[in-house]
Amino acid sequence: MLVLAAPPGCGKTTIVQEIAKTDPMTMISVSATTRALRPGEVDGKHYYFVDRKKFQQMVDGGEMMEYALVYNSNMYGTPKAPVEKALKEGRDVLFDIDWQGNRKLSDIAKDDVVSIFLLPPSWAELERRLYDRAQDSREEITRRLGKVPDEISHYKDFQYVLVNTDLNKTIKQVYSILEAERIKRHRLSDLQDFVDTLKPLKK
Amino acid sequence: MLVLAAPPGCGKTTIVQEIAKTDPMTMISVSATTRALRPGEVDGKHYYFVDRKKFQQMVDGGEMMEYALVYNSNMYGTPKAPVEKALKEGRDVLFDIDWQGNRKLSDIAKDDVVSIFLLPPSWAELERRLYDRAQDSREEITRRLGKVPDEISHYKDFQYVLVNTDLNKTIKQVYSILEAERIKRHRLSDLQDFVDTLKPLKK
Repeated sequence: MLVLAAPPGCGKTTIVQEIAKTDPMTMISVSATTRALRPGEVDGKHYYFVDRKKFQQMVDGGEMMEYALVYNSNMYGTPKAPVEKALKEGRDVLFDIDWQGNRKLSDIAKDDVVSIFLLPPSWAELERRLYDRAQDSREEITRRLGKVPDEISHYKDFQYVLVNTDLNKTIKQVYSILEAERIKRHRLSDLQDFVDTLKPLKK
Repeated sequence: MLVLAAPPGCGKTTIVQEIAKTDPMTMISVSATTRALRPGEVDGKHYYFVDRKKFQQMVDGGEMMEYALVYNSNMYGTPKAPVEKALKEGRDVLFDIDWQGNRKLSDIAKDDVVSIFLLPPSWAELERRLYDRAQDSREEITRRLGKVPDEISHYKDFQYVLVNTDLNKTIKQVYSILEAERIKRHRLSDLQDFVDTLKPLKK
């Protein structure tokens, strides 16, 4: 399980989508949320957009791996079934979630979670990206920017920290992390069985 | 500090030399040894070949970072000065050492050591490689092969385990490890200073 967290405008969603598209051994965990769909977003791809009642049903039914109330306004959660299915198939699951989601996921499965925090190259660049993509109103952008310093303060919870100055370089770095973490000793199943075969053949 | 350990014939030296050649931010720690120079080896490149008296002088003079007697026959050690100089310059140091050296290095500087153990794809392939390179006599090869299962049994001391089936793929994997480990949060100096700049500008 690979968690990517970042303030808005750091390129997180682009990176996660790119990796899922190019690496068949990965898939994205699509979160459920009670927040409104933004222009350009697709239900079932970026999020499962559900109302509060449906969200609560999923929680009560034990269908959520983790969930949280973000900034006292909207609920976000990770549906359990698709993640468990993908892991069983030996695939890596990418999580585009925030520090709260990462903390809960790490509590559930510490050794199986790899966490990356993305930072913008500068505050000015972060503002520029948010205004340029014009996905939200100026008021909404100001509101979201106001929360960024608090979000960033949680970077210490994460194993890796990347500054996304150049998108291609950052994607390459995430790939390196993915490749390296896959060959960590404790993740190699059947390693002892293989090592047992490395002996002189009986003559 | 990146440790690569492996039984003979796993491609360890080739990999370390290739990385040092292509990545200017790395350098190889050249060990000192009391064993005899083998055909093709160059003093000062593959090892510093010294006699027992000189080796003991280096130990007594505090010039060794770690040293060990290997298989009750030869001494191997890591001269301290070049490693400290390279680390001070911000370079990564590659260690082509065995499990004993890795254990001692990890004892000295746990958080700064990344360790990789290389395995051959099969026992038959390991034998083939050792006989093919014809660096040693048949008796010497038989002797070295006899020690391999014991060496391999120490793979559990290492953070990463690679099976060297394809040299180019293995080199790429070592690069991924190097790149990923460089962006681990605890290795990023001045990160907090940078994070402190990510705030709205005072108007």
